Amino acid sequence: MASAVQPEQSMVKKDAHPFERAQLEGLMTKRFFYTQAFEIYGGVAGLYDYGPSGAALQANIISHWRNHFIIEEDMLELDTTIMTLSDVLKTSGHVDKFADWMVKDMKSGEIYRADHMVEGVLEARLKGDEEARAKEAGQAVTTDAAPAADEKKTKKKAKSVAVKLPDEQVAEFRRILAQIDDFNGEQLGELIKKYDIRAPATGNEVSAPTEFNLMFESYIGPTGQTKGYLRPETAQGHFVNFERLLDFNNGRVPFASAQIGKSFRNEISPRAGLLRVREFTMAEIEHFVDPENKSHPRFNEVAHLVLPFLSAATQKAGDTTVKTVSIGEAVSTGMVNNETLGYFLGRIYLFLEAIGIDTNRLRFRQHMENEMAHYACDCWDAEIHTSYGWIECVGCADRSAYDLTMHSNKTKRDLMVQEPLKEPKVYQKYVPTVNKKVLGPLFKKNAKLIEDTIMGLDQDTLKQMQADLESGSAKVTTGSETFDVTKEHVTVEYKTIKESVRNFTPNVIEPSFGIGRIFYALLEHSFWAREEDKERGVLSLPPLVAPFKVLIVPISSNEQLSPLARQLSKKLRSLGIASRIDDSSATIGRRYARNDELGTPFACTIDFASVSKGTITLRERDTTTQRIGTVDEVVDVVKQLCDGRLDWKGACQILPAYTGTQDVENA
Amino acid sequence: MASAVQPEQSMVKKDAHPFERAQLEGLMTKRFFYTQAFEIYGGVAGLYDYGPSGAALQANIISHWRNHFIIEEDMLELDTTIMTLSDVLKTSGHVDKFADWMVKDMKSGEIYRADHMVEGVLEARLKGDEEARAKEAGQAVTTDAAPAADEKKTKKKAKSVAVKLPDEQVAEFRRILAQIDDFNGEQLGELIKKYDIRAPATGNEVSAPTEFNLMFESYIGPTGQTKGYLRPETAQGHFVNFERLLDFNNGRVPFASAQIGKSFRNEISPRAGLLRVREFTMAEIEHFVDPENKSHPRFNEVAHLVLPFLSAATQKAGDTTVKTVSIGEAVSTGMVNNETLGYFLGRIYLFLEAIGIDTNRLRFRQHMENEMAHYACDCWDAEIHTSYGWIECVGCADRSAYDLTMHSNKTKRDLMVQEPLKEPKVYQKYVPTVNKKVLGPLFKKNAKLIEDTIMGLDQDTLKQMQADLESGSAKVTTGSETFDVTKEHVTVEYKTIKESVRNFTPNVIEPSFGIGRIFYALLEHSFWAREEDKERGVLSLPPLVAPFKVLIVPISSNEQLSPLARQLSKKLRSLGIASRIDDSSATIGRRYARNDELGTPFACTIDFASVSKGTITLRERDTTTQRIGTVDEVVDVVKQLCDGRLDWKGACQILPAYTGTQDVENA
Repeated sequence: MASAVQPEQSMVKKDAHPFERAQLEGLMTKRFFYTQAFEIYGGVAGLYDYGPSGAALQANIISHWRNHFIIEEDMLELDTTIMTLSDVLKTSGHVDKFADWMVKDMKSGEIYRADHMVEGVLEARLKGDEEARAKEAGQAVTTDAAPAADEKKTKKKAKSVAVKLPDEQVAEFRRILAQIDDFNGEQLGELIKKYDIRAPATGNEVSAPTEFNLMFESYIGPTGQTKGYLRPETAQGHFVNFERLLDFNNGRVPFASAQIGKSFRNEISPRAGLLRVREFTMAEIEHFVDPENKSHPRFNEVAHLVLPFLSAATQKAGDTTVKTVSIGEAVSTGMVNNETLGYFLGRIYLFLEAIGIDTNRLRFRQHMENEMAHYACDCWDAEIHTSYGWIECVGCADRSAYDLTMHSNKTKRDLMVQEPLKEPKVYQKYVPTVNKKVLGPLFKKNAKLIEDTIMGLDQDTLKQMQADLESGSAKVTTGSETFDVTKEHVTVEYKTIKESVRNFTPNVIEPSFGIGRIFYALLEHSFWAREEDKERGVLSLPPLVAPFKVLIVPISSNEQLSPLARQLSKKLRSLGIASRIDDSSATIGRRYARNDELGTPFACTIDFASVSKGTITLRERDTTTQRIGTVDEVVDVVKQLCDGRLDWKGACQILPAYTGTQDVENA
Repeated sequence: MASAVQPEQSMVKKDAHPFERAQLEGLMTKRFFYTQAFEIYGGVAGLYDYGPSGAALQANIISHWRNHFIIEEDMLELDTTIMTLSDVLKTSGHVDKFADWMVKDMKSGEIYRADHMVEGVLEARLKGDEEARAKEAGQAVTTDAAPAADEKKTKKKAKSVAVKLPDEQVAEFRRILAQIDDFNGEQLGELIKKYDIRAPATGNEVSAPTEFNLMFESYIGPTGQTKGYLRPETAQGHFVNFERLLDFNNGRVPFASAQIGKSFRNEISPRAGLLRVREFTMAEIEHFVDPENKSHPRFNEVAHLVLPFLSAATQKAGDTTVKTVSIGEAVSTGMVNNETLGYFLGRIYLFLEAIGIDTNRLRFRQHMENEMAHYACDCWDAEIHTSYGWIECVGCADRSAYDLTMHSNKTKRDLMVQEPLKEPKVYQKYVPTVNKKVLGPLFKKNAKLIEDTIMGLDQDTLKQMQADLESGSAKVTTGSETFDVTKEHVTVEYKTIKESVRNFTPNVIEPSFGIGRIFYALLEHSFWAREEDKERGVLSLPPLVAPFKVLIVPISSNEQLSPLARQLSKKLRSLGIASRIDDSSATIGRRYARNDELGTPFACTIDFASVSKGTITLRERDTTTQRIGTVDEVVDVVKQLCDGRLDWKGACQILPAYTGTQDVENA
């Protein structure tokens, strides 16, 4: 849908200047998309505040997410607490395992995330080696320097020095870097010793890696006895409410719950802007499905979509070439585990395309076996390419029955689905009956244990017990003790069982979106500079998500124009179109330029012809071309443009060109 | 607007049964509006999860808030972090003052909020006294027992025993209860001793009150050196970004920023459902205004509105009778401090009315002098009446220049507005000039202090200094020391100053909404039971905020009906109307009843006439009456009903009555 309203490639000269991250970052603060939190207090790493333009862009991304997923698919929306009881996160494994390895500079005390430090230092040595070899060969260094340099920056500048390394060490370093996510603390410690890796900022030795749990902890209530953590994901809030959700859905699966909200990770040393932060907005779906039937009723709607897949098999072969096949084929060949997973990959693709992500810089990467959580049966990340490299922006995992099973075991609650069987299942089995009245007084405190043991026996043992009881007595072993029981205590019958209900723990397929990362990637993909002036940045955001859709510019401060501006703003608002009046004293060219930086796709200029003839002009951001029409004509075209029913080419067929824009644009 | 679509009073028999809180609470969990968080782990007091119906209702309230305030008034929306640097909250006063008094049961260790405990015990004694007096007089107790009992429950059951108190003690207790919010810890401790107040649950003695800060604390990063708190309000996030906001608004005031998000208060012992919670959604506006001009350009739009005011003066006279006057009059008589404050009171009223709050149970109560924060110059709370009594749901305070001044002093940032003066201000003043080159070597480490002291001198002192310097030397006193200075060190000139800019710190008017409290009050105001069956609860939520607007009911599971249900759902969705298909096997009467409990205002029934003639019926929730029409006719009427352009009476004029509903409704 949104692709229809994106400007034609030929109209936009996006590649006139190479992308410069510093320029985008400058624009972000200048136009208050976002800024470091508590800036006037010196700021805190990994915490960012969104200003009016950023908050509006984020709200529009979320609003489309809600329409695309929750409304379109009747998902059950939740809003569960951020403050989470520690027991819940103990069960989910986060208290024990949600940690990174850190090392400390032995003299300065500065702390580094161990894997990032090793990665940074080895990359710097490889770069130094390259430089040395190039010098040796008398060549200039021709590597893709800009992104590499930026990447270094995020790891606190492990500086490269032109030192040539032995060939086998180059190979060894490359091998380590390819597997850097797989090393545990001990192994990272060995690498640090073996290669004498030191703190990049000081050159000092570092401590052995120690584990640091990434959850923020606090205490609930005044006693200090109830420990809580800020949730690291919204998912657990879905699982602990599973019974009520199932009930709300009349006891049936499949259904999906969804939640949009803040989560927290106390990152050790965040240094990559919005891509690694301590507080972030997530949008998560938990789709509960019958483990024996992971088909999806709407699969045919996405089966034809051709996506760029990077499978685990490809990666294992040391290759990173994507394979573009249809989702239908990906599922039928088994590369993607099941229809529901495939369906969501398609829906994720459509969502990202609609909000303006360049799909040429998008890939779906499958987790490799050792990378995947042990309970997951398949997992694909939607990765988006940015100046920081390929960034995981959406995870889509089949979490199997893991979470519900763990919570059920811990709380003794029956987190299962009861499915009425069309035909009852009839079979025979040995069923023990315990005579509590006799057992109790006889075995006293052991009675309950003996009963539980008998009720838990398998069919073979029960069959044997029946025979033993017939012959006089049977033995029951409970841990270390053995007891003799007779028919007086327990009987075993071979019964015919008729089951009309099937009980099962549903599996969970979880698409999980990092909204801040998508937000940042979208900004990189949308940003470019005008060919004629490198300093004039433009954000080509689609109208669907642009913070403001229309800029209203009175051409002068003449007081005849101001009421017209307010009327137009009101008219647009009644159609649900967010506009902004810029009646500042800046030249009209500067006001256009300012709004190009805000990503405002359209501008309506109010001039004296508006007063005399009732016309206004309509300017399109990417092409800077202008058309003219009556207020009603222009508003109607704008409405269609914003709804995605019309593109600029179409608009140009409805509204005639406005002549004389040149003067204005360069004023 | 919404009042237009609210059912006629005569059509709804809202008062057929008295309100029972337990019934509403039962409905809330059964229909998953909300539930205690971590229920399967035993729950945590003061933490609640919102399920699909609650999350949708909340989202609709927030969405209307955004339209009514942010969009309608071009406010600058923010999304700032929850995790807040401790320095910021130190400056704002929260680290030192954001606390409640708590006492501990000396034996069980249970903790109570001191004021709540005293209040509960004294109320129980007064109730016991009433009972004893009634018995003495041979009367049955006729007090409004139900809500009173409920109120007690929230304070951990201070049980009433029928004991008569001396008349003067009754008067004394009443006086204390009226001022309970005014006592500090020491005073509460005295009351506890004086009246032998004991832990309600055990009768044990309690400790002296100690202070407990209500902020959740945590540490940012792995070093434990950066302390953070979860924000107790969103306001500070606005203030620390003031410079960027002002810049975004082209340097001009008035403008408003707005933020919707979670805040946290670690309540000592929360026991009043959604009204006192540890994590909650707030919506806050900070309107920055010139302290010398608090008029509002749109004041005339609300000036005619007549609101129920309870002024500080009335309360001081021991009265709680509201005065219903127009906002225009309230401002012109000075009861409400200024136009901007009055404007927001009107907008708050209109917002609450639109979402369905019963305005007969709404009042605006002014803070009394001792109740108001010391920096505030006026403060009004919108209080809504519930079964818990009058509850503060929206605060509307004029915070003056307090916050910006405090942050500016702390960070040395200039958080001011520069207003170009139309005519420059010309005046004369004494201006000192310090000769640093001489002062530095002479006074060494004291030089800077001497310079600062001179630069800070007032006009009279400077005049004297000029004269002294002319006569030889002048004295400069810095704290404990006095220094002699001559013309060589410093000169004072009487200069003509021309100021073309006025610098000022804007004042802040802050409407602050507790969304969860409004949400709960709305549920109480919307809830009633059918006259014919007390068990059949109904939530008469306006279509504007109802979680789902339309229930779609296929009359049977016949497979001809199901595609029609899906088509209708799709058609409604394309118009932005949230619907829910209920194709469960329950009788149609039960399905209607279920959706009455969800507050779904309309139901479309699909039957065999839908297949043969293309008609569907439309049922209205409050009246249970049904009309009939073609799908397109009904959808058009529903759209108008949801937009507030039509009420049910109007709908009945468009669509003919459907006959034969009786069977269906009682099936």
